[in-house]
Amino acid sequence: MPRRHARKHLVSRLKQRHPPGTMPGTLSIDPAAPRPVINVMEFDAAGCRERTDVSMEELDGLAIRLGRSGGQQRAAASGTSPASVSSTATRAGAGSGVLWVDVIGTGDAAVIQHIGELFGLHRLELEDIVSSHQRAKVEDYTDHVYLVMRECSCHKDLEQDQISLCMGQGWVVSFQGKHGDCYEPVRQRIRQRKGRISAQGADYLAYALIDAVVDSYFPALEHLGETLEALEDETTLKPSEATAAAIHHVKRDLLTVRRAVWPAREAISTLIREDHAFITADTRVYLRDCYDHLVQLMDMVETYREIGSGLMDIYLASVSNKMSEVMKVLTIIATIFMPLSFIAGLYGMNFNTQASWVNMPELNWAFGYPFALGLMAATATVMLVYFGRKGWVFGTRRNR
Amino acid sequence: MPRRHARKHLVSRLKQRHPPGTMPGTLSIDPAAPRPVINVMEFDAAGCRERTDVSMEELDGLAIRLGRSGGQQRAAASGTSPASVSSTATRAGAGSGVLWVDVIGTGDAAVIQHIGELFGLHRLELEDIVSSHQRAKVEDYTDHVYLVMRECSCHKDLEQDQISLCMGQGWVVSFQGKHGDCYEPVRQRIRQRKGRISAQGADYLAYALIDAVVDSYFPALEHLGETLEALEDETTLKPSEATAAAIHHVKRDLLTVRRAVWPAREAISTLIREDHAFITADTRVYLRDCYDHLVQLMDMVETYREIGSGLMDIYLASVSNKMSEVMKVLTIIATIFMPLSFIAGLYGMNFNTQASWVNMPELNWAFGYPFALGLMAATATVMLVYFGRKGWVFGTRRNR
Amino acid sequence: MPRRHARKHLVSRLKQRHPPGTMPGTLSIDPAAPRPVINVMEFDAAGCRERTDVSMEELDGLAIRLGRSGGQQRAAASGTSPASVSSTATRAGAGSGVLWVDVIGTGDAAVIQHIGELFGLHRLELEDIVSSHQRAKVEDYTDHVYLVMRECSCHKDLEQDQISLCMGQGWVVSFQGKHGDCYEPVRQRIRQRKGRISAQGADYLAYALIDAVVDSYFPALEHLGETLEALEDETTLKPSEATAAAIHHVKRDLLTVRRAVWPAREAISTLIREDHAFITADTRVYLRDCYDHLVQLMDMVETYREIGSGLMDIYLASVSNKMSEVMKVLTIIATIFMPLSFIAGLYGMNFNTQASWVNMPELNWAFGYPFALGLMAATATVMLVYFGRKGWVFGTRRNR
Amino acid sequence: MPRRHARKHLVSRLKQRHPPGTMPGTLSIDPAAPRPVINVMEFDAAGCRERTDVSMEELDGLAIRLGRSGGQQRAAASGTSPASVSSTATRAGAGSGVLWVDVIGTGDAAVIQHIGELFGLHRLELEDIVSSHQRAKVEDYTDHVYLVMRECSCHKDLEQDQISLCMGQGWVVSFQGKHGDCYEPVRQRIRQRKGRISAQGADYLAYALIDAVVDSYFPALEHLGETLEALEDETTLKPSEATAAAIHHVKRDLLTVRRAVWPAREAISTLIREDHAFITADTRVYLRDCYDHLVQLMDMVETYREIGSGLMDIYLASVSNKMSEVMKVLTIIATIFMPLSFIAGLYGMNFNTQASWVNMPELNWAFGYPFALGLMAATATVMLVYFGRKGWVFGTRRNR
Amino acid sequence: MPRRHARKHLVSRLKQRHPPGTMPGTLSIDPAAPRPVINVMEFDAAGCRERTDVSMEELDGLAIRLGRSGGQQRAAASGTSPASVSSTATRAGAGSGVLWVDVIGTGDAAVIQHIGELFGLHRLELEDIVSSHQRAKVEDYTDHVYLVMRECSCHKDLEQDQISLCMGQGWVVSFQGKHGDCYEPVRQRIRQRKGRISAQGADYLAYALIDAVVDSYFPALEHLGETLEALEDETTLKPSEATAAAIHHVKRDLLTVRRAVWPAREAISTLIREDHAFITADTRVYLRDCYDHLVQLMDMVETYREIGSGLMDIYLASVSNKMSEVMKVLTIIATIFMPLSFIAGLYGMNFNTQASWVNMPELNWAFGYPFALGLMAATATVMLVYFGRKGWVFGTRRNR
Repeated sequence: MPRRHARKHLVSRLKQRHPPGTMPGTLSIDPAAPRPVINVMEFDAAGCRERTDVSMEELDGLAIRLGRSGGQQRAAASGTSPASVSSTATRAGAGSGVLWVDVIGTGDAAVIQHIGELFGLHRLELEDIVSSHQRAKVEDYTDHVYLVMRECSCHKDLEQDQISLCMGQGWVVSFQGKHGDCYEPVRQRIRQRKGRISAQGADYLAYALIDAVVDSYFPALEHLGETLEALEDETTLKPSEATAAAIHHVKRDLLTVRRAVWPAREAISTLIREDHAFITADTRVYLRDCYDHLVQLMDMVETYREIGSGLMDIYLASVSNKMSEVMKVLTIIATIFMPLSFIAGLYGMNFNTQASWVNMPELNWAFGYPFALGLMAATATVMLVYFGRKGWVFGTRRNR
Repeated sequence: MPRRHARKHLVSRLKQRHPPGTMPGTLSIDPAAPRPVINVMEFDAAGCRERTDVSMEELDGLAIRLGRSGGQQRAAASGTSPASVSSTATRAGAGSGVLWVDVIGTGDAAVIQHIGELFGLHRLELEDIVSSHQRAKVEDYTDHVYLVMRECSCHKDLEQDQISLCMGQGWVVSFQGKHGDCYEPVRQRIRQRKGRISAQGADYLAYALIDAVVDSYFPALEHLGETLEALEDETTLKPSEATAAAIHHVKRDLLTVRRAVWPAREAISTLIREDHAFITADTRVYLRDCYDHLVQLMDMVETYREIGSGLMDIYLASVSNKMSEVMKVLTIIATIFMPLSFIAGLYGMNFNTQASWVNMPELNWAFGYPFALGLMAATATVMLVYFGRKGWVFGTRRNR
Repeated sequence: MPRRHARKHLVSRLKQRHPPGTMPGTLSIDPAAPRPVINVMEFDAAGCRERTDVSMEELDGLAIRLGRSGGQQRAAASGTSPASVSSTATRAGAGSGVLWVDVIGTGDAAVIQHIGELFGLHRLELEDIVSSHQRAKVEDYTDHVYLVMRECSCHKDLEQDQISLCMGQGWVVSFQGKHGDCYEPVRQRIRQRKGRISAQGADYLAYALIDAVVDSYFPALEHLGETLEALEDETTLKPSEATAAAIHHVKRDLLTVRRAVWPAREAISTLIREDHAFITADTRVYLRDCYDHLVQLMDMVETYREIGSGLMDIYLASVSNKMSEVMKVLTIIATIFMPLSFIAGLYGMNFNTQASWVNMPELNWAFGYPFALGLMAATATVMLVYFGRKGWVFGTRRNR
Repeated sequence: MPRRHARKHLVSRLKQRHPPGTMPGTLSIDPAAPRPVINVMEFDAAGCRERTDVSMEELDGLAIRLGRSGGQQRAAASGTSPASVSSTATRAGAGSGVLWVDVIGTGDAAVIQHIGELFGLHRLELEDIVSSHQRAKVEDYTDHVYLVMRECSCHKDLEQDQISLCMGQGWVVSFQGKHGDCYEPVRQRIRQRKGRISAQGADYLAYALIDAVVDSYFPALEHLGETLEALEDETTLKPSEATAAAIHHVKRDLLTVRRAVWPAREAISTLIREDHAFITADTRVYLRDCYDHLVQLMDMVETYREIGSGLMDIYLASVSNKMSEVMKVLTIIATIFMPLSFIAGLYGMNFNTQASWVNMPELNWAFGYPFALGLMAATATVMLVYFGRKGWVFGTRRNR
Repeated sequence: MPRRHARKHLVSRLKQRHPPGTMPGTLSIDPAAPRPVINVMEFDAAGCRERTDVSMEELDGLAIRLGRSGGQQRAAASGTSPASVSSTATRAGAGSGVLWVDVIGTGDAAVIQHIGELFGLHRLELEDIVSSHQRAKVEDYTDHVYLVMRECSCHKDLEQDQISLCMGQGWVVSFQGKHGDCYEPVRQRIRQRKGRISAQGADYLAYALIDAVVDSYFPALEHLGETLEALEDETTLKPSEATAAAIHHVKRDLLTVRRAVWPAREAISTLIREDHAFITADTRVYLRDCYDHLVQLMDMVETYREIGSGLMDIYLASVSNKMSEVMKVLTIIATIFMPLSFIAGLYGMNFNTQASWVNMPELNWAFGYPFALGLMAATATVMLVYFGRKGWVFGTRRNR
């Protein structure tokens, strides 16, 4: 039952939140979240090295090579205070290669914290990464940019996942709540050295990942659009009680997509507008394309929502129409048979015809019965003509 | 069936989109799109040369004359990187003539790519040109401006087409999804050297083409307005179940027009506001006129949408009214004949009048039957008077 | 029938538009528009000269005196190109008097064009003047300002007219679609030298004309307000099917007024804000008053629209209530008489009382008939008490 | 009848307006407006002098003392031209005392004009003061500020009054349409020398008066809030036809309050933001408090309006529910008694049992009658069980 | 009964307000408000001292140590004029410790006034603190910032409390209307020296308190979300009259939460944007996190409100559907039994079969009774087939 699923989602979004008054920066791990699996890709114009399910130690080694480990580790040891954040801005440029650390699953506070220390992430940032109900936003931390978005996928029901991206000079760390395949095409392009991605910096990689997430909204919306069309037919042809619930369900899913798309648009707009040192003008052109897609998505979501609202109106009209038709049938039958029954009842009375000549002389007429039948036929005819004129009898059919 | 058509459109809008994660700048050709046919017009104040169904080679020749071929071809070969875009800005002014390349149909990636290379179009631009679901926008590429809009035509159903315009100093390349005749009057004006168009530059030609597209919205809206009026009559006089669906359909079409007009307005506004070297102040005045038309169109669309929403309310009220009328007929008939039938039933009881004098003495009265008939007539009269006072019997007619 | 009129208006607004792709600046004369009649008033602090139905030649003479004819005529001959517009800014100040040319009717392209040439009007301006469906706007043409607004009058139905004002240093040319009397009070004030109008410049005259147009909205809105009140009574007391249509009609008229007032507000605001050389600070104070009136009108329109929407809700509630009342009557009657009829039917059965003592012994009881009547009375009483408790029988009355 | 009152108000708001085209600055006195009564208070930190029903001559004397009479009278004589307004800015500082002239009633053009001349008020200002339908606004006239607001009081129905305040250095002139007591607490505070009002300047007095007007909205809103609550009970427990009208009435009153509060908020905001010489920073802090109250009022109005809209929905749902319940009763009764009556009718048929053994042998059975009664009882039981399962019989009660 | 509680709240919000025209700065104590209990915490990086239920004298002592008593007391004695406010800005820095005075209950004007004098609070500020219906806002008083917010808690019904925070260099004074436990986690963190709170200044403490209040909205919203879900089930499965009222109730509570969250968002935004000397850049990062939470809350509130509105639509549709089903049952029964009863009535007529051979010969047929029964069975079958085809009999079940 689709609705039940969506509902569970709505609750889970709230339940995972840490208790009120908790210290800010506390990593409240959702017990249901999968343990992190870390995949690393290192590439430059010359080649690409890929390692899957990397251990913490391997990651430390990589970070050392990137010139990030020394100062960072110490800063991390001294409490991850935001003061340390600005100090990390002085690290070396780390060559022209790009390091992409993809963390799938956020179910282990220690791992997340370790990665945070390696890359100099703020503790509020880490708090956002592990909480699964963030609104899309961009935050600028001097030496890196933090971006959070929601991915939508629609197999049977609309499912969401939180996607976090931290991108600095020469590195991108991405976090996904659960394993999704939306980054797979990007990995393929890096492996097969297709397009410009290998020759470009971390900013272009970040763009490619953002683009993959934005592209994930299209099939989800397409699915909702098809559901709407099916409901449009159902509403007009044979609306049932389930139709109203289904329309409500689609409208709710559209609200969910909207809640993902709308802030994402703002976030990307911020990314384009603000002057980040490691986002090149060239990548900005591509991000603008991404932004256009989000605007187009909003457009579609709003259109679908209006169509959904219109459908509910038609549904109500349709229910009223059906009831009206039922009433007509009842009225026609009752209006024809009530007078007939009355006439029959009339001549079923037991007045004593012998008491006087005015007492039901019809009963003894030679043609009393035909007379009564004729009276009934005339009454029925008059009624039918009346209803025919009103367009209730044949008109019902014609108008449909 | 009109609704079915509109629905197909809605789906196709989504289906043609490339799969998520595809490399940006990939030309995802819609297999249903017609193969491109290229028409070329060259004109200046002195004369005009027109060639239809131009081959790629002829186009190359034209581009060479325009001083666009050399640097362009090479830039294109080196990957159409945006860097090359700015380099093309140094080409020669190419005299005072205007070259208009009109490409009808976008069903061949190679042709589109070739044209893109000839005129130094960005690859994101080409991606937008071949995708058929773009929102109207203007993009500024140093040496040329890219504008995309939607054309609306309304033969039986509302149909849309995507119109792309790339305009540089001395040249305009226009792309249409399928053959439409909205540019025909502009061609006529160039051929017949009517008005100022021949004496003006490429910016004025671009304006003329934009104006033709904007003008295409008016007949479409007119058609929807007429449909609304017909529905207004239908709703008030004889609403049927199809009326609700028809109102919904018009509202949907208005949403479609709105989705075309609203971003077009923004796009034209951007075109006027921003400082493009090859758009003269004079043409800006004309574009402002175009902008005013779009504002007026929005105004009309919003008004029609409000009228449409109002119609749905009236429709629901009308259905309720009809049902209320049906109920009145039923109630009147039932309320009159039930008591009568009861009286008839009463005197149809078989109590033994000989058992005692209180057992149905009426049956043996001399005037028992007239008494019963009188009782019935009195009952019916009381009921009719009661309903008459309530305004149900004659009032029904008067109030309508 | 009022609705029919309003509808015709809606269509005509669209029909008069020139075909798509027409050359910009083409004067598409509405064949139904009356031929222009030109009235001229010349006045200064000393006196006033008024001429009605002025010929083209007389107008030329006047323009010569104003120092407008020479350069203008030539500029006009050279194609009314916008370039000539700025050149006309160099003409002489033309003394302190004010020339008001009032053109009633726009049904002759030659006359409009001639006037346009005399006063150096842009050809897009002329196109707007003769088209009858412009949105209110202000346009600034270096040496004069062009303002278009819609006048509303409400004799039986809401009627609109397009009012154009071109005002320069020392002259005002006004265009009306058809003869309306909204300028008459201004003419009176000039003739009778009442108030400050005679002593002021062309800007004050323009303000007085704008103010007259704005004032024309008040009676129209007043009429709609009164209609709304009448409908409020009708809806509550005796709603009929026509009520819904009438509410819809008022809402449509309010939309029309809104479409006139809203852009007019923007236009006047532009006029106040922008720095036109020939609008004095003093007149600006008066225009601000005008602007306040338009804000107040918007306020009223929005309030009326909300009341109108509320009325539709009440109407629907009222129809439901009426139907509910009808249902109650039916239910009460049916619920009382069905059991009674059943009892009567029961004792109308023909079981053979001689077959056994259990076969309908009541029929032969001495008090069988009173027993049956008592049973019926008891049943009816129980039902009435039940309905009385539910508040259906007497409650219906009390609650109303 | 409350609704009737409110309606009258709506019309009067329009009727009093001067005819279209009237000269601006014309004082169109509402014939129903009471004649002005002028009360004067003079006070400083040392003491307070109060005079009620002051004559024009006394007022002239006061004005002379204030150093306003000379230049003003002359300026007034020369036509109250705006030019004179700026000249009055040069008058003497008039010591540290505050003069408060409170004019109650605006029904005499001569008196209003005289006061206007004394204090150098612009003639558009006077026009606004005597017209009773102004939207709240602030206007800045060099040497004084003009503020107009609407007071709301709610004894039985919502009543409004227009409040004008002209405040300059050392003086405040206030105009009320009719006698209201909202200024009384301010007068008390001055008389009893309570609080800081006596020691402060005219700007603080103006603030105190504005605050009193703003405070007048609270009881009015409170009344509407209580009405809404009563209607909430009524709608849920026993909705009648009057409920819908009452909800509509409250929503209309809320619209009226909103129309008073919304522009007042803008006006006070303007007053705080703009730099008026005679409004001290200290008073600005108090005005900000006033502004906060208005924001809070808007908040409440919007909340109440949403509750009102929600109530209408519940009302419609409630009417539908009641009708549904009526239908259930009818259906249960009809569905039980129709089969019973049919059985009774069946055995009331007069087939000749002697014609053959198949002709109604039941009639002659020994237990024919008990058999028929049993058949009826079984039918009724089946029906009741069916309805019981559907939750119609006992469920109706439980669910309520 | 939940609704009753919510309503009381609505009224109390208004009732406590002081009468119109009251002197600004008057402390209108709500008689129902509890007497203040003052808890004090002093802490720095080294340690923490906590005192509960502090007397006024103790508080004076504390203030002297903070260097606030001298000048302040005198300023307070001289009338708490706003002028004194700026003078207090010159007091000593008071070391690095933080003093937190938490006042629970605002039911004693003298105590509040005394605290106000100690910390140099403006009298409008004190007025806001004791009034319980303030909208969230931030006010900047040179040497301290005043922030007011609403706390929401949801045990059974939604309850609100007003939270005021005055924060200066080294001190925070917080006021709560009644004892709530939302500050308890903050106190725990200070006591246990967990996190960074002990080592930070007053601004971080203020942030921690604001964060605790913002976190209080989440469980309240969660509760409303769960109620909505329960109502979603109820609406679809078995809607009763109480469902509509419950939906209305949730929508009202959402309005209340919205009224708390929306202005809080603005207030926090102001706090972040404006340049307060004692709010460090570091704390600003945390406040931005707080702001993000409020944006997310708004998002949820709006989503819930849309779901609530959608539910009302489904509820109405559901009621209509139920009625339609009831009508179908009635129509089927009536339509089957009316013709049957008519046939039975027909053969119950008493026409004299001996009068002629046409007079009801069926009565004497050998198979008259089977013939009549057959006629009835045929009629019933035809009717059932007709309804079956319409999908009324079995379709009703399938569609559900």
